Amino acid sequence: MRVLGVDPGLTRCGVGVVDGVPGKALTMVGVGVVRTPADAPVGLRLVQIEEGLERWLDEHRPEAVAVERVFSQHNVRTVMGTAQASAVALLCASRRGLPVHLHTPSEVKAAVTGSGRAGKDQVGAMVTRLLRLDAPPKPADAADALALAICHIWRSPATNRLQQAVASHRAAQAAQHAQPAGRTARTARTQESAP
Amino acid sequence: MRVLGVDPGLTRCGVGVVDGVPGKALTMVGVGVVRTPADAPVGLRLVQIEEGLERWLDEHRPEAVAVERVFSQHNVRTVMGTAQASAVALLCASRRGLPVHLHTPSEVKAAVTGSGRAGKDQVGAMVTRLLRLDAPPKPADAADALALAICHIWRSPATNRLQQAVASHRAAQAAQHAQPAGRTARTARTQESAP
Repeated sequence: MRVLGVDPGLTRCGVGVVDGVPGKALTMVGVGVVRTPADAPVGLRLVQIEEGLERWLDEHRPEAVAVERVFSQHNVRTVMGTAQASAVALLCASRRGLPVHLHTPSEVKAAVTGSGRAGKDQVGAMVTRLLRLDAPPKPADAADALALAICHIWRSPATNRLQQAVASHRAAQAAQHAQPAGRTARTARTQESAP
Repeated sequence: MRVLGVDPGLTRCGVGVVDGVPGKALTMVGVGVVRTPADAPVGLRLVQIEEGLERWLDEHRPEAVAVERVFSQHNVRTVMGTAQASAVALLCASRRGLPVHLHTPSEVKAAVTGSGRAGKDQVGAMVTRLLRLDAPPKPADAADALALAICHIWRSPATNRLQQAVASHRAAQAAQHAQPAGRTARTARTQESAP
């Protein structure tokens, strides 16, 4: 699975592409930052972010996009810019029909360091180790984008298994309603063992 | 001047197009709401808002776009959705090279009612009167979008005159530095009387 992680921001929008499946070594495909000038009008900055993300999507063709979930923090101005940049990321991915998932900062930290309260350095160190890089990617937004992609790769099978279990349960229930009682158990088992 | 006003929101994005110049009667060209289902993923909702706004821009070809400036209010969830919808409006307008202006809710209320603290009903009543409509546009988001467009038409000449005055002052200063003292006054006057 190839995932594009996006750490949204107006001034620096971190982007990182990771290939991998849970339980195997991960591979970094690309990492970078889409920058926009702080003195440009917001509309033009959003256009530049859109163009930058489109280039990353065109070049690397990810199967899914993971974006950091924005919370209303202390600095209102920053939050607005972050929310606007994240809207562009959601838009670009959804326009292509790609699944987009939002992960909270603590989910991402917990995924790569084991602690939801880990600092930036710790996240950078683990990203470096997990992707077998020579040094932590700079700036921190780039490292965070890779951490988002890793988080998504590791969390999605849990989500997939849950969805499969729910689907299988629903299929078993539907079979119970639609068929004679004697065949229900076998049908349900067949459904559960299907890939 | 034709202006598209956008009252951004994820569930209801108000849109209104007004033709007019200051000091003359205003004309409503169109009004409506771009709606998205609350149970759809945010990314798909943003795509639907983009498609809706693109249709309004294609059909009415405004010369400028006025968007409500988002503030971090009490309800964090609503603010995020509003910021994301406003990002799409800024993006659509800027991609076409249209000037986009943000107006605060109190600027809009003051423009159409004379008071920055006017209520929704008062804004709706004045929009109805100024555009000579039979009844206030519903829902309130649609009326607010028209009020934004009116605010923009009425405020922009003040901005234009200010910009002209600044440009004229700068030209006069430049002339003062570049030319013999005796010619400065005449050059400055010529600049000021230019259109």
